[in-house]
Amino acid sequence: MSIQIRKFDSSHPDFPKQLSEVLAFEASEDEAIDRSAMQILEHIKREGDKAVLEYTKRFDHVEADSMAALEISQAELQAALDQLTPERRAALQVAADRVRIYHERQKNEIGSNGFTYTEADGTILGQKVTPLDRVGLYVPGGKAAYPSSVLMNAIPAKVAGVPEVIMVVPTPNGVKNELVLAAAAMSGVDRVFTIGGAQAVGALAYGTATIPQVDKIVGPGNAYVAAAKRRVFGTVGIDMIAGPSEILVICDGTTNPDWIAMDLFSQAEHDELAQSILICPDEAYLDKVAESVNRQLADMPRKDVITTSLTNRGALIKVRDMDEACEIANFIAAEHLEISAENPQQLADKIRHAGAMFLGRFSSESLGDYCAGPNHVLPTSRTARFSSPLGVYDFQKRSSILQVSEGGAQTLGKVAAELAYGEGLQAHARSAEYRLK
Amino acid sequence: MSIQIRKFDSSHPDFPKQLSEVLAFEASEDEAIDRSAMQILEHIKREGDKAVLEYTKRFDHVEADSMAALEISQAELQAALDQLTPERRAALQVAADRVRIYHERQKNEIGSNGFTYTEADGTILGQKVTPLDRVGLYVPGGKAAYPSSVLMNAIPAKVAGVPEVIMVVPTPNGVKNELVLAAAAMSGVDRVFTIGGAQAVGALAYGTATIPQVDKIVGPGNAYVAAAKRRVFGTVGIDMIAGPSEILVICDGTTNPDWIAMDLFSQAEHDELAQSILICPDEAYLDKVAESVNRQLADMPRKDVITTSLTNRGALIKVRDMDEACEIANFIAAEHLEISAENPQQLADKIRHAGAMFLGRFSSESLGDYCAGPNHVLPTSRTARFSSPLGVYDFQKRSSILQVSEGGAQTLGKVAAELAYGEGLQAHARSAEYRLK
Repeated sequence: MSIQIRKFDSSHPDFPKQLSEVLAFEASEDEAIDRSAMQILEHIKREGDKAVLEYTKRFDHVEADSMAALEISQAELQAALDQLTPERRAALQVAADRVRIYHERQKNEIGSNGFTYTEADGTILGQKVTPLDRVGLYVPGGKAAYPSSVLMNAIPAKVAGVPEVIMVVPTPNGVKNELVLAAAAMSGVDRVFTIGGAQAVGALAYGTATIPQVDKIVGPGNAYVAAAKRRVFGTVGIDMIAGPSEILVICDGTTNPDWIAMDLFSQAEHDELAQSILICPDEAYLDKVAESVNRQLADMPRKDVITTSLTNRGALIKVRDMDEACEIANFIAAEHLEISAENPQQLADKIRHAGAMFLGRFSSESLGDYCAGPNHVLPTSRTARFSSPLGVYDFQKRSSILQVSEGGAQTLGKVAAELAYGEGLQAHARSAEYRLK
Repeated sequence: MSIQIRKFDSSHPDFPKQLSEVLAFEASEDEAIDRSAMQILEHIKREGDKAVLEYTKRFDHVEADSMAALEISQAELQAALDQLTPERRAALQVAADRVRIYHERQKNEIGSNGFTYTEADGTILGQKVTPLDRVGLYVPGGKAAYPSSVLMNAIPAKVAGVPEVIMVVPTPNGVKNELVLAAAAMSGVDRVFTIGGAQAVGALAYGTATIPQVDKIVGPGNAYVAAAKRRVFGTVGIDMIAGPSEILVICDGTTNPDWIAMDLFSQAEHDELAQSILICPDEAYLDKVAESVNRQLADMPRKDVITTSLTNRGALIKVRDMDEACEIANFIAAEHLEISAENPQQLADKIRHAGAMFLGRFSSESLGDYCAGPNHVLPTSRTARFSSPLGVYDFQKRSSILQVSEGGAQTLGKVAAELAYGEGLQAHARSAEYRLK
């Protein structure tokens, strides 16, 4: 078994086209899936718990008399935590603590107390910041069930001050993932229901007799879940619809090639559509990494996924220098950007677009995935150009505050009336003028 | 002509149902419009400028040889500003200045410089904040062309540091709105194209030979524009899809009823679907406002729109006391909440969900619409439960920073490996273990 990762040279005239092609990823919006999700949502909206029970029986082969039977008690969550090996429990605790500390820091830094200021005439302007009342957390069942995702979604919500986090996780054939339940206990999830799919999204978005309506739904899911989230957006908030995971490594050629090869693997093993790209000015180094990839592959339990991912979506890119590497990194706007180089901060200063930047050769992406502290839910598919890691700010919202004094109303009233007449909105003008002396 | 606004009493057993019914607004997602928007987008993606020119000819009856002919020069924008009457120009300047000052304050308060902190072992964690590179601003042509919206969308983008703001505004039959162009000049818009509809959204989202691809599209539009924005979401960022505008007034019965009636009108005159609701513990006061509504209606140039809006979607609600008024206000989560009462701050402290709060009897919504400073783009249709006014934060994004020291990699590597093995991701584990000594 051997992998041929495609190689590009940025000096080649076709390079911009080649790069665009390798990055191209069109989220398949399957019409059949979309229609099916819509029908499920309508059914849930109409029939509530009854419909949820039906779909859970049909899709997950779990039969229950009532929704109450599908709720996992806090005692059961705690038991899952207590049954972990000491090593695993300690690791989960370190991860949870570090994620909490980072997000508490973030909360303090983003003006979570809001602000007000008072003008000379006594007018007060400002902004109030409040947490959401209730958040739904979708956790996939089956192969993509990651306890780390529970921590990364639930802890920022709790740090933001969300009083109630409701988790849903399907348990196909009744099989529960104990590590996921342990993570829910550790991160303070308030209630857990063993439901999934578009039906769980609908239950959270509309509420049922048993499941309370939430204000926002976060967390990853399959194509039905994604389609359902798109559909309920507006009724509730949603996080980004994530594409395949990506890593971009820009390396000056001084890091052990085996380390970089393994970093590329760590992304590629997620998913056949995952993308791993390495950029380096040193062509000989790219060859060393390619050699290491092939040497290390055999040892990897997930070598089939890795092979498909690296063959179809991987790339090794030779560039002129590290400055050009940064330019290309800004174009790619990767979810994960490793800057594996001698003076990583200098290069990081040149990066405008990335979900997370991993600076220096010791900052492997995997440390960030689990326990460094920053969130591992990051913008994919070039959306880092306009969006941010999941954070405390996703569980808060702002309200503007305007307390216009009688004096302020004299100045502002004339301005507002002038502009309102200009827009043909006479009641607006009159409403302002009534406050004039 | 007389208006019968429906009256509710919160003590009536049917009240929760009545309230839900009056609030119910299902954004009509017309399949035909959606399909048509999709076809236009595909055409723009495939044929670029040529397709934009075709649609502009077909829908706006504007014929041009080239896209360049549809660009408005900075000189023309400046000329529009120079031609305003001194009164209107001064009013626009006050509004622009106050919006800028408020959003500069906001920028300082929301951690726009990011943060980093260093742990004992030298590991650095943090977050970098950067403005978007390029933003598209959609401005409707025709009846809903509001220069104030140009200020409210463009100024926060510029305060955030967005280098390039590209405005699109259709000019049906070639008619330009000079006040809109003047507002563009005043708020520092970089380029303006006279195109609109789904074709303008497509041009901004995908880029054409003439129109540069943007990272986010903001601004209101008709159903085709909204459908197109939903479709391009992911390729670019979008702001919220706005529903009809709403005002909720909670009043203790001490404000001049004519003022409150006019405040209700100022919302109702926007649109037949707009919603105006008044809540008060004093039934006699509600009657006085109802009387004032009917007395003042005849004077209103937009009385037909007002009548339809208040009849179909307005409500007067008698409550037990102002505390209950606040509870209901939290349920409604109104776009605009006026707290017209003696001690408005005490009541505001009880409000968790509102787009903007207008405190005290001098704070009419119209002052906020034009010139108080806070943004007038606000969450509608109960989305204030989970979303915020448009702000500087909508034109910034964050990147996580992780610089793990060699010492940090020893601690974190073991934790990450333990959890990665738990999730069956061996390359993740190996990648962390390589950094162990």
